[in-house]
Amino acid sequence: MIKRVGSYTLKFSEPPVITGYGSVAGKKEAEGPLGKCFGKIIYDSRAGQDTWEKAEAKFQQEAFIQAMTMSKKKPEDLDFIFAGDLLNQLISSSYSMRDFAIPYLGQYGACSTMAQGLIMASMTVAGGGAREAGVVTSSHFCTAERQYRFPLEYGGVRPQTAQWTVTASGSVIVSERGKGIEVCHATVGKIVDLGVTDLNNMGAAMAPAAADTIMTYLKDTGSSPTDYDRIYTGDLGQVGTDILHQLLFDEGVDVEGVHHDCGLMVFNRKKQDVHAGGSGCGCGASVLCSKILGDMTKGSLKNVLFVATGALMSPTSNQQGESIPSVAHLVNLRKH
Amino acid sequence: MIKRVGSYTLKFSEPPVITGYGSVAGKKEAEGPLGKCFGKIIYDSRAGQDTWEKAEAKFQQEAFIQAMTMSKKKPEDLDFIFAGDLLNQLISSSYSMRDFAIPYLGQYGACSTMAQGLIMASMTVAGGGAREAGVVTSSHFCTAERQYRFPLEYGGVRPQTAQWTVTASGSVIVSERGKGIEVCHATVGKIVDLGVTDLNNMGAAMAPAAADTIMTYLKDTGSSPTDYDRIYTGDLGQVGTDILHQLLFDEGVDVEGVHHDCGLMVFNRKKQDVHAGGSGCGCGASVLCSKILGDMTKGSLKNVLFVATGALMSPTSNQQGESIPSVAHLVNLRKH
Repeated sequence: MIKRVGSYTLKFSEPPVITGYGSVAGKKEAEGPLGKCFGKIIYDSRAGQDTWEKAEAKFQQEAFIQAMTMSKKKPEDLDFIFAGDLLNQLISSSYSMRDFAIPYLGQYGACSTMAQGLIMASMTVAGGGAREAGVVTSSHFCTAERQYRFPLEYGGVRPQTAQWTVTASGSVIVSERGKGIEVCHATVGKIVDLGVTDLNNMGAAMAPAAADTIMTYLKDTGSSPTDYDRIYTGDLGQVGTDILHQLLFDEGVDVEGVHHDCGLMVFNRKKQDVHAGGSGCGCGASVLCSKILGDMTKGSLKNVLFVATGALMSPTSNQQGESIPSVAHLVNLRKH
Repeated sequence: MIKRVGSYTLKFSEPPVITGYGSVAGKKEAEGPLGKCFGKIIYDSRAGQDTWEKAEAKFQQEAFIQAMTMSKKKPEDLDFIFAGDLLNQLISSSYSMRDFAIPYLGQYGACSTMAQGLIMASMTVAGGGAREAGVVTSSHFCTAERQYRFPLEYGGVRPQTAQWTVTASGSVIVSERGKGIEVCHATVGKIVDLGVTDLNNMGAAMAPAAADTIMTYLKDTGSSPTDYDRIYTGDLGQVGTDILHQLLFDEGVDVEGVHHDCGLMVFNRKKQDVHAGGSGCGCGASVLCSKILGDMTKGSLKNVLFVATGALMSPTSNQQGESIPSVAHLVNLRKH
């Protein structure tokens, strides 16, 4: 059963359960503070493939297999797979999922895709459309940089507001019943665009969307930040985090005590040259599917908000002078 | 309530209802056999905008407003909008939907996106996650050609197997209750890839996916092609249509008497130089939201399968020598 709470929030009265999760990260991510949390490290940026795009698909497959193994499921047990990534036409997802013969629904929410997929899977399972649904997302520094900014060989200098695309993948299995982390609420975000046009400052473009969705959720549920052990954003980085705190503070909401950003968690900004932090579909996804769900499984976190943000522009729209529309999707996860 | 029938098919026991639909098409489409069916024609390929990409977003907005008007809904009545297109990062959708403040879920299924969106909206409404959900998709010849193949100015010669990307948009409103066309069953397709690599022969790449989904649906529901007034595919064109007929015939299923392809309906191949037929997200979407739903509303069609196919490659994957993974999603529409 799905109920609607307030104007925009969904409440799952018999919550779908995350019965399995998996994560795969690259070398630079392994050297960061969460290095020991990931399910698997692939040190070769090509993952034994002949292109980075195929490597990214390989990362997805490995994360997905981990999630299925933990959930004790086989591909044929899954009614749907919700998959997405940052690449044009979602090729990492379509090529990775080509081998599994699972009904496939491509999702695009840029870096918010893990939260979007988790919401779609939860709605589908809670609504009776599926007993089991998988979600997988990824990003790869080498595929994303040449697509969005410059070929790596160009050696473009990145400004301090820029974020470093995380090379990683995360995957979850959402089940009708079972043991695991419950998906209790969800808020799908509206597109917010305050006019930021700088492709090297995604944090500033996405922070207003995060603020909008968090405020909507808190209002709809009548809760406050202190009701949660943690509020995680996907990849605002340092610039976006500062803006989010200010925007929420201006609305009378103080999240500083409970807020963490996956883009700031995944790298050590003092030692690793990532400027404003990590970003990408794989950032929030791999942190969720390692550290966050890991801590919840251990019981050290019991009530968490995961808010992944996405910047919905393309290089074409940017070159045409358009600003960056952004979106943030929120899920409330609980461990009993 | 959503029930599962057979291995892969969903049955909506209280069917969601398409209470509104809208379509917008361009000049070449207006000159085709369905010219009088579209809700609106925009003769200027730029639709008064300064880029084709913004024009495509304008097409979406116009189709969506038509659908809302017919359904007597305002943007604030809609709980979700499922939107997608062919452009990198779905910019037509994010820019068109930026103005409406509706919770946004980007969908990517290439030319299958209208069926995918319709299934997502129907599952969400039938599952209790939404009372009303919108779907909108589009394609534009000028934006798609330069992204997938060559800049128009290059004047590349197209082989006879190539299809012409339709400049059009279609939109529906799916409601919990109301008067309209019912969504009774749905089958989400698996990725099928038989190794076709020719970007100018999408029909051949997609036909096996259409055959797979149609066979799955017929088996799951125990029905046969003659149980339906029409079986529409999205945009297989002539090459793909011939292959589909053969593939199904080899399985003992004859669809020739009831099968029509939107890519063949939208243009007059004898008079309009479109080679194998029309294609694009906007092809199946605009034909569904004009001729098909129009005929169903009038009552001349009562039981229809709409099967939209998508080719999930990108120019990058193609240049890297990869074949074309394809998918087909099916919805069963009924009029009482």
